[in-house]
Amino acid sequence: MMETWRKKAGVAWEKAKRSPALACRKMWRVGKDDPRRAIHAVKVGLALTLVSMLYLLEPLFEGIGQNAIWAVMTVVVVLEFTAGATLCKGLNRGLGTILAGSLAFLIEFIAEATGQVGRAIFIGCAVFIIGAAATYLRFLPYVKKNYDYGVVIFLLTFNLITVSSFRVSNVMRIAHERFVTIAIGCGICLFMSLLVFPIWSGQDLHNSTVNKLQGLANSIEVCVNEYFSDEAVTEAREESDDEEKSCDEDPIYKGYKAVLDSKSTDETLALYASWEPRHSRHCRYPWQQYVKVGAALRRFSYTVVALHGCLQTEIQAPKSCRALFKDPCVRLANEVSRVLIELATSIESRRHCSPELLSDHLHDALQDLNKAFKSQPRLFLGSNGSQASNMLAVAAAQARQQKERDEAGGGGVALSSAKTDTSALREWKRTRSKKESGERKVLRPQLSKIAMLTCSLEFCEALPFAAFASLLVETVARLDSVMEEVEELGRVACFKEYKREDDVVVTVKCETPRVNVCLHNLPSHGVD
Amino acid sequence: MMETWRKKAGVAWEKAKRSPALACRKMWRVGKDDPRRAIHAVKVGLALTLVSMLYLLEPLFEGIGQNAIWAVMTVVVVLEFTAGATLCKGLNRGLGTILAGSLAFLIEFIAEATGQVGRAIFIGCAVFIIGAAATYLRFLPYVKKNYDYGVVIFLLTFNLITVSSFRVSNVMRIAHERFVTIAIGCGICLFMSLLVFPIWSGQDLHNSTVNKLQGLANSIEVCVNEYFSDEAVTEAREESDDEEKSCDEDPIYKGYKAVLDSKSTDETLALYASWEPRHSRHCRYPWQQYVKVGAALRRFSYTVVALHGCLQTEIQAPKSCRALFKDPCVRLANEVSRVLIELATSIESRRHCSPELLSDHLHDALQDLNKAFKSQPRLFLGSNGSQASNMLAVAAAQARQQKERDEAGGGGVALSSAKTDTSALREWKRTRSKKESGERKVLRPQLSKIAMLTCSLEFCEALPFAAFASLLVETVARLDSVMEEVEELGRVACFKEYKREDDVVVTVKCETPRVNVCLHNLPSHGVD
Repeated sequence: MMETWRKKAGVAWEKAKRSPALACRKMWRVGKDDPRRAIHAVKVGLALTLVSMLYLLEPLFEGIGQNAIWAVMTVVVVLEFTAGATLCKGLNRGLGTILAGSLAFLIEFIAEATGQVGRAIFIGCAVFIIGAAATYLRFLPYVKKNYDYGVVIFLLTFNLITVSSFRVSNVMRIAHERFVTIAIGCGICLFMSLLVFPIWSGQDLHNSTVNKLQGLANSIEVCVNEYFSDEAVTEAREESDDEEKSCDEDPIYKGYKAVLDSKSTDETLALYASWEPRHSRHCRYPWQQYVKVGAALRRFSYTVVALHGCLQTEIQAPKSCRALFKDPCVRLANEVSRVLIELATSIESRRHCSPELLSDHLHDALQDLNKAFKSQPRLFLGSNGSQASNMLAVAAAQARQQKERDEAGGGGVALSSAKTDTSALREWKRTRSKKESGERKVLRPQLSKIAMLTCSLEFCEALPFAAFASLLVETVARLDSVMEEVEELGRVACFKEYKREDDVVVTVKCETPRVNVCLHNLPSHGVD
Repeated sequence: MMETWRKKAGVAWEKAKRSPALACRKMWRVGKDDPRRAIHAVKVGLALTLVSMLYLLEPLFEGIGQNAIWAVMTVVVVLEFTAGATLCKGLNRGLGTILAGSLAFLIEFIAEATGQVGRAIFIGCAVFIIGAAATYLRFLPYVKKNYDYGVVIFLLTFNLITVSSFRVSNVMRIAHERFVTIAIGCGICLFMSLLVFPIWSGQDLHNSTVNKLQGLANSIEVCVNEYFSDEAVTEAREESDDEEKSCDEDPIYKGYKAVLDSKSTDETLALYASWEPRHSRHCRYPWQQYVKVGAALRRFSYTVVALHGCLQTEIQAPKSCRALFKDPCVRLANEVSRVLIELATSIESRRHCSPELLSDHLHDALQDLNKAFKSQPRLFLGSNGSQASNMLAVAAAQARQQKERDEAGGGGVALSSAKTDTSALREWKRTRSKKESGERKVLRPQLSKIAMLTCSLEFCEALPFAAFASLLVETVARLDSVMEEVEELGRVACFKEYKREDDVVVTVKCETPRVNVCLHNLPSHGVD
C-alpha cells in the first residue's frame, strides 16, 4: 500500500517537474511558429506603458484627470494583432461613441423637462428600448459582419452617459472626456499598429493563399505517387484501423486540411484587410478576389479528398491494371501539381503566370494518358460481337452525327457529350492561336473539356481504377476554375507582366516543391 | 440634361422610398428565422434596465455609488445569446478580475517601499512586462480557446488598479468596488440567461446536427434522381455557364453547403456547451461527440460533393447505360437517404436507432444493384478471348486462392481485395446473427466492405457511369463511419432504447423527408 502511494507520488512529482518545461517549450513554439506574435506582445506592452504616462506624468495628468482610465481601457481592448483588425475595432469604437453621445444628449434634453421620478422612469424606458433595439440590430448579418463591436460600444456609451446623467449634473463633460480619452487611446493603438512593425491582414491572406496552393500541389503529387506504389497501398490497408490517429501526420491530409477549413479564416482576414489602407503603390488589393480564389481552391480540394478516398478504400484495382497506366497518370498529377506551384509562385511574386507554359505541359500529359488508353484498346473495349462494343459504336455514331449537325449549324462550342479526340484537339489549337494573338481572356477555356473528352468513353476496366482516373481528370477540370480565379486576381491586383527570364526560376522551383512548402510556411515580412 | 437629372432624382427617390421597407423586411426576417433573437433582445433590454436601477433607485445608489457603472458595463459585454456563452464570458470576467486584483496588490505592496519617481518607473515597468506577457499568453492555443476573454479582462483590471493606485490612495476600495459591481453585473446576466427563457448552445448543436443529417439525406436523393432524369441533366449542361449564380438555389448544394462550412460553428457551439450545466436529468451530453459526428458528416459530404460533380461535368454516360441501372441506383440512394433520416430522427428524439431496419434495407439495395450488374455480364466483361476477361479471370483466381488461404489460416476478416460476392454475403449473415444475439458493437462493421466487394471488379462500362456508381458506393462506406459516430453518441448520451412502436412513426417520416427538413429548420424549443 505504502509502496503504491510512494510510486504515485513519484509519478506526480515527475509530472510536476516536467510540466513547467513542457509549458516553456509550448510557449517557445508559439513564438517560433510566428515571430510576429512576440513583436505584437512587445507592442502591446509598449502601448500600455505609453498610455499609462497620462497618469504617471504630472503635466499630462493635470490636463486629463481621472478619466485617463478610458484611454487605458481603449488600448487594452482595441490593439489587435493585425493593422486591419485594429483599424476596424478603433473606428467602430469611435463611431459607436459619437453616435451614442449624440443620442444620449437627445434623451437628456427630453428628460430634463420632467421631474425627478418621471425622469427616472423615462431613463429606464429609454435604456430598455435602446438596449433591445441595438441587440436586435446585431443579428442583422450585415451589421454583425462589419459593425458588431461598434454597436456594443454604442450601447455601452449610451448607458454610461444616460445613467450617469441622472446623478451627475454635467453630462456634457462626461461625454466630452470619454470621447477625448477614447480618441487618445485609439490614436496610440493606430500609431502602434500602422507605423511600428505593422502586421497586415492582407499580407496574411496573400501568404495563406500561396501556402494553400503549395499544400494542394504537394497533396496531389503524393497521393498519386502513393496510389501507384504497391507498398504504400498495402500499408494503408493494414493501417486502416488506426487511420484516425495517423491522419494528422499523413502528408496528403496535411496538404488539403488547411484548405478545407479555410472559409472562416479567409473571410475574417478579408474583412480586416478591407479596413486596411492600401499599402502598395499601384492599386488596391482586391481582397474579395482572394476569397474567391479560396472558394475555388476549396472546391478543388473536395476532389482531392475523393482522390485520397480511393487510396483509403479497401478495394483496389488490380496491380497489373494500375501498372499499365502508372506513367501517364503520375505525369498528369505532376503537371497538375506543377501548375499549382506555378500559380503559387505567380501570386507570391505578384506577376502574371505564363499561360503557355501551363497549358502546353498539361495538354501533353493529357495526351499521354489518352495515348496510353488508346494503346490498350482491347483491354478496355472487349473484342468484336459483344454487346458492349456495339453500344459504344452506336454511341460514337450518334455523337458524330450530333457533331456534324452542330458544325453545320454554324459552329459555336457545342457541349455534345462525345466529340472525338481530334476535333477537340483542333478546337484547342484554334483557341491557342487566338490566345497567342493577344486575347488574354480566352486562355484555356477548352482545356478541361478536352480532358473530359479524351478520357471518357474510350476505356473501361476495373471500376476502382476508372473512378480514380475519372477523379484525376475531374481535378484538371476544377483546376481550370482555380486558374481562372487566379488570373482574375492578377488582372484586378495589377500584377506584373510575365517575363521570360522568370522562367528559369520557376523551373528550378518546380523541381523541389516540398522544400518550397516548408520555406513558405513562415510568413514573409519584408514584401511591403 | 434637365430631363436626365430629373430621372436620376426620381430613381434615387424611388430607392429611398423603398429602402426603409427593405430594411424593415430584413429586420422582420431576422426575427422570423429565429424568434429567440427577439426574445434575447428583450432580455438584454430588461437586464440593462435592472442594472440601471442601481443608479436610479436612491437606496441602491447609496450602497454602491458611482462605481455602479461597472455593473452596467458588465451586463452590456457579458450577456450573450446562449447560456453557455454568457457563462463562459461571465466566469472569465470574474476570474480575470480576481487574478488581476491580487497581482495588482502585490505590485502595489512592492511599489510602496520606493519614492514617488521610483514608484512611477516601477509601475511603468510592471505595466509593460505584464502587458507583453499576457498578450503573448493569448497566442497559446489552449488559452486562446478557453480563456481569451479572461486574459483581456485581467489585463484591463490590472492596468486599471495599478495605474489608478498612483493617484488614489485607497486602492483597496477601488478593487473591492470593481469586484462587487462586476459580481452584481455577472449575477444579473446569469439570472437572465439561465433562468429567463434560457437558450442552450447544447440544444443548438443538437438541432444543427439533426438538420445537417436531413439536409444531406435530401441532397443525396435529389442528386441521384437528377442524374437519372434526362431532362435535368441536359438542363444542367445548358446552364453550366451561370452555374455560379444558380448555385444558391440548387437543392443539392443547399443540402450539403451547411455541412461543409460547419467546422467553426460546431466547435464554437461545443465550446460554449461545455460551460453549460447539465440540463437533462439523466446524464451530461457529450458535446465533443457531437463535434465528432459533425466531422464524420463533413467527410461524408465531400463524397456528396464529388457525386454532385458527376452531374455538373459536361460529359455524361450514354443514356442507355444509365437507364439500365436507374432503378437499383435510385433505390440505393433512397436507402442511404432513409438511413440518414433515421439517424436524424433518432438523435432528434434521443433514442437509439433501429440497427436491423437500417442494415436490412441498405443490404437489399446493394444486392439489387449487384444483381443488376450481374444480369448484364456481357455488357461489362466483354466476350471470350479478350485480354480484359483474361485479366479478370486471373485476378478472380488469385483472390479465391487468397481467400482459401485466409480461411485455412483460422479466419479473421482478411481484407483481400477480391472476395466473391457469396463469401461476403455469408460473412454478413454471420455478423448479423451475432448482432441479433445481443452484441451491439458489431452492428454493421462488414456492411461497407460488402458494398465495396459486390460492386467492384464485376463491371466495366463507360467511365463516367463507373465513377458515379463508385462514388455512390463510397457514400455507403462513409455512411458507415457516420453511423458509428451516431451510435457512439447514443451510447455516451444515454439515449432511450429503441422500441418497436417507434417504427411506425419512422416509416411515415421517411416517406416525406423533405417536409421534414422544412419543419425542422425552425429550432425546436420545448425539448428540455
